[in-house]
Amino acid sequence: MKSSVPLLDTITRYIIKRKGKQIRPVFVFLSASLCGTVNESTYRAASLIELLHTATLVHDDVVDDSNLRRGFFSLNALWKNKIAVLVGDYLLSQGLLIALEQDEFNLLKIVSNAVREMSEGELLQIEKARRLDIEESVYFEIIRKKTASLIASCCSCGAASVKVSQEMVQTMWQFGEAVGIAFQLKDDLFDYDQTAITGKPNGTDIRDQKMTLPLIYLLNHSDFMEKRRIIHTVKNGHSDSEAVARLIEKIKNRGGVDYARLKMGEYRQKSLRLLQTFPDNEYRKSMEQLVLFTTERIA
Amino acid sequence: MKSSVPLLDTITRYIIKRKGKQIRPVFVFLSASLCGTVNESTYRAASLIELLHTATLVHDDVVDDSNLRRGFFSLNALWKNKIAVLVGDYLLSQGLLIALEQDEFNLLKIVSNAVREMSEGELLQIEKARRLDIEESVYFEIIRKKTASLIASCCSCGAASVKVSQEMVQTMWQFGEAVGIAFQLKDDLFDYDQTAITGKPNGTDIRDQKMTLPLIYLLNHSDFMEKRRIIHTVKNGHSDSEAVARLIEKIKNRGGVDYARLKMGEYRQKSLRLLQTFPDNEYRKSMEQLVLFTTERIA
Repeated sequence: MKSSVPLLDTITRYIIKRKGKQIRPVFVFLSASLCGTVNESTYRAASLIELLHTATLVHDDVVDDSNLRRGFFSLNALWKNKIAVLVGDYLLSQGLLIALEQDEFNLLKIVSNAVREMSEGELLQIEKARRLDIEESVYFEIIRKKTASLIASCCSCGAASVKVSQEMVQTMWQFGEAVGIAFQLKDDLFDYDQTAITGKPNGTDIRDQKMTLPLIYLLNHSDFMEKRRIIHTVKNGHSDSEAVARLIEKIKNRGGVDYARLKMGEYRQKSLRLLQTFPDNEYRKSMEQLVLFTTERIA
Repeated sequence: MKSSVPLLDTITRYIIKRKGKQIRPVFVFLSASLCGTVNESTYRAASLIELLHTATLVHDDVVDDSNLRRGFFSLNALWKNKIAVLVGDYLLSQGLLIALEQDEFNLLKIVSNAVREMSEGELLQIEKARRLDIEESVYFEIIRKKTASLIASCCSCGAASVKVSQEMVQTMWQFGEAVGIAFQLKDDLFDYDQTAITGKPNGTDIRDQKMTLPLIYLLNHSDFMEKRRIIHTVKNGHSDSEAVARLIEKIKNRGGVDYARLKMGEYRQKSLRLLQTFPDNEYRKSMEQLVLFTTERIA
């Protein structure tokens, strides 16, 4: 990652110091091991995807105007939007060049497709979020594109890196997509968990007008007048935390949380079932544990 | 460019309606014609580069916080930064996919390299701009990366699309780089031209604390105390237009504008000399005219 621009090197050092769990590379390596033996290509796939994911996070911070990322100041808080957009573009092109220089065209196709889906998913979400009224099928379309497509590309790149059949690459894509959707549903459910400090749910997503499955379920099972009241509460969530707390209770009582948990279980089961088609060895066990970790993690 | 997201389609229609001169595709097609016969690959190169250039403009507007682009509202003014960053990413990945789907790996390598150079150049400029004190060699490094590398990639992609020798692709890169530098110097010089309304130079670049060659020349030919005074004027340019007008006079009297014009002429000559190695036909004549147009345009 060394460049000829000192400011850029300062920023990449900052990014590397504050890296996350690096779950995506783990998906790449385990998928490669499930299908064959990890090789140089696998490392390049993992690097490409982690660079890309980091670029996305940097751009997301601009998008969300976030000032914190993983508990640290985000790039745009420290260095302004200007630099954050440029560094994101730099990371993206750097990832592409690593792959291009080694003629990793298969990996590139898989990953570029995911990049397109991710930006489409974000834009679809913005478009739908305006009216705060969203079909369940659209919700699944959004999370499939926004979150699941990148995890799917980790898994299929891992498989493609060890040169297996197109069919197996496809199976690993489906596996990753199912895990990704379950992962996002788990994320949605966090908002309904009791927090350590207050013992009550945070309701942050609702206050941010983020439409998650438990809320969508309630909306789709309410009559016209009730729907209007719920949307009113969501729109004024920031100024009326009492109403948000009552809405969360209602979502729970009317089965919204249970429904999201059910759906998460379905996608998790789907992913575990796809794993059954692979030989029963330590890699499969690790992957099963990874699936459980990403869908049962408590934070 | 049709997508499955209506909001995205609205935005791409808006972008297409307000497209610019499309100078970069013209460089691609003329370079291809100079070296051989335009084919499908040439069209893909032109599309890839125009998409990429558009993505860069959309991101630049976020970077510069501009509200106008080519006389129209910019995307971020209309739809906020959030959407502008995402649309830029979408255009970029869409361009990559067009090339990847057709196995245009050579074109991709040339273009990805330019993307990296462009973001490096922007970041280098930001880093150097802070101190408002910049070496001439660094200035040329910045414009080579920021502006010239994309025009160079147009010309070498055009050549590569018609399957010529690596040497010819390289010559076209050098040609494009020289044109690009001359183009940027011409842009710098605009700031010293008389405007239609006041009959006086605008000095917009100076007010924006943008370090261009005429100003850099004066700084590098001033003693310590004078340098401090000049930097003071640049830093306070927005509040003291009298001082800016005096600075512009000084830059002119001390040869800064003439020097930049001289340098522009040198790069233009270099590019025309490189064209002499090609057969003397209508394409070469058109390319010569394009070089003159880009370095003599009045707006």
